Amino acid sequence: MKNYAIGIDVGGTGLKGVVLHDTGVRSFLTRVPTEAEKGGKSVLDKVLVLIEAIIDKHGTRKNLLGIGIGTPGAVNASGTVIGGAQNLPDWEGTNIIKPIRQRFGLPVKTANDALAMTLAEWRFGAGKGLDNIVCLTLGTGIGGGIVANGRIYKGAHGLAGELGHISVDYDGVSCSCGQKGCVECYASAAGIVRTAIGVCAGLSQNRQTEFSKLVAAKPRDLTSKTVYDYVKKRDTAALRVNEIVCEKLARIVGVAINAFAPERIVLGGGVMNAGKTIIDTTRKYVSRYSLSGSRSRCTLVKARCGENAGVIGAAQLVFEEMGRNKNV
Amino acid sequence: MKNYAIGIDVGGTGLKGVVLHDTGVRSFLTRVPTEAEKGGKSVLDKVLVLIEAIIDKHGTRKNLLGIGIGTPGAVNASGTVIGGAQNLPDWEGTNIIKPIRQRFGLPVKTANDALAMTLAEWRFGAGKGLDNIVCLTLGTGIGGGIVANGRIYKGAHGLAGELGHISVDYDGVSCSCGQKGCVECYASAAGIVRTAIGVCAGLSQNRQTEFSKLVAAKPRDLTSKTVYDYVKKRDTAALRVNEIVCEKLARIVGVAINAFAPERIVLGGGVMNAGKTIIDTTRKYVSRYSLSGSRSRCTLVKARCGENAGVIGAAQLVFEEMGRNKNV
Repeated sequence: MKNYAIGIDVGGTGLKGVVLHDTGVRSFLTRVPTEAEKGGKSVLDKVLVLIEAIIDKHGTRKNLLGIGIGTPGAVNASGTVIGGAQNLPDWEGTNIIKPIRQRFGLPVKTANDALAMTLAEWRFGAGKGLDNIVCLTLGTGIGGGIVANGRIYKGAHGLAGELGHISVDYDGVSCSCGQKGCVECYASAAGIVRTAIGVCAGLSQNRQTEFSKLVAAKPRDLTSKTVYDYVKKRDTAALRVNEIVCEKLARIVGVAINAFAPERIVLGGGVMNAGKTIIDTTRKYVSRYSLSGSRSRCTLVKARCGENAGVIGAAQLVFEEMGRNKNV
Repeated sequence: MKNYAIGIDVGGTGLKGVVLHDTGVRSFLTRVPTEAEKGGKSVLDKVLVLIEAIIDKHGTRKNLLGIGIGTPGAVNASGTVIGGAQNLPDWEGTNIIKPIRQRFGLPVKTANDALAMTLAEWRFGAGKGLDNIVCLTLGTGIGGGIVANGRIYKGAHGLAGELGHISVDYDGVSCSCGQKGCVECYASAAGIVRTAIGVCAGLSQNRQTEFSKLVAAKPRDLTSKTVYDYVKKRDTAALRVNEIVCEKLARIVGVAINAFAPERIVLGGGVMNAGKTIIDTTRKYVSRYSLSGSRSRCTLVKARCGENAGVIGAAQLVFEEMGRNKNV
């Protein structure tokens, strides 16, 4: 009989759930809106309902080993969310383990959402078979996850891997976290938009492009996808944005190479739909920001598990932390 | 019968050797000059002679489990030194494992010198009993070592932990490694001297101090120890140097907190003879450069194993990697 786990990914806009079998097969992928504005208690209730619904779809709780939760921030020993969960008001401070464990009577495993994505990439995707990888997830913000010595690395309190909040410009933009010049301010979806608006505003009249005119007309509608649509069209203003973004990204890739000397660095998240361009441009700059010994032994690649990496990784966490790794 | 290991620390100026018993007892600590200028082959010969001499002193090879070597850079799978060993001409490229194994017929374990120091601090010193620590060793250069999930972390090829070569000022001083603004350029012994010379040269006539006059008169005689002697005397120019050094150091401590979220960060190396001043000043700045969640759960402390941490850690490596950790 196949064992299975349920994974839940808690995001700022959506809650995702999935069934993952220890054979690697996934089913009943479900997404509901988070409605974060209703507060932590409401989000937790939705998580409970989602788990219930997935068990119903699956039809039986037999062989359900446990529930894995990927969340912004981390979860401390007593089950309470700690650390940054800026898109989820009062999620920090919510005890998420106790209510889930009580309702379902099953083990509950938790990890930072970027670490959950890293776990999926490590077990099923771009980092498969390696012992040391670093993942950066470029989405609304920038998260990071680390696999060290063939194990996921959570750090002392589950808060490790916050590479998005390492400064790449100590005199740079003020970040919401209180630091200055965090790479998240430049190379996340929001950071790319900010960078684009800055670049376009600085162009003289005779350097305006189709892209810069669009940005000037509707700055609030700009998304990182639009930026990269124009990069594809070789719009000079958009190309300039891409260079700035990737040069900043290369700094943090350099930090990861120097500090971790991993076999591979994996870039994922929504922004990486523009994958090849970002990988190629970033690679150009990485040599400036890393030691040649480690750099020459490390590859920089695009993630492979797609947008559901986080929820798959959350489920995989159950097998990982219960020592039931049949599917690797 | 007690098992023992021999540790060798390969430094730019001195080679150290020691016997470490699995009870933690050390004996026959020996130091000979490296004479690095004679080249890699000569250094290796000296290492062989040193091991032989230590075995002679100990009197028997019975119960000698293996030999641990701490070296700049790292050693690859075939036994050859890779990565930066800037103070040891042509040490990079030297196969150090084969000749030692052939001569003594024993297992040879290797690690980066800063990682060896980290191992000593973890097992016997300031990081004892913890599962996740980061050590920075402030000496001629700056090295780093990581303990993750209760194991030393070498990275894919033994090159992990090069925190000294992470930039803390992307428009800063050119480092010998090819990058710009590496923390090593500011907070290593040489970096502190360079910073001091810069600060003193920039002082107007009416701001000169006893320290700045000394620096102006004999810049080539300046050492980091002298800087901190004047810091102790509350010389305003020296105090200014300390602030700059520690502010830069805080940036890399922040990187370590954000990336690794360890329980503890340990600062060691010769520069840390001025320990309390550096720890206190650095702490002041760390909040600017780290996320509050991880920072509030991490302590910054001075190393405890002293100047022989590297060679003790090199010996401990044998127990660590052969699964014979009786002494912890």
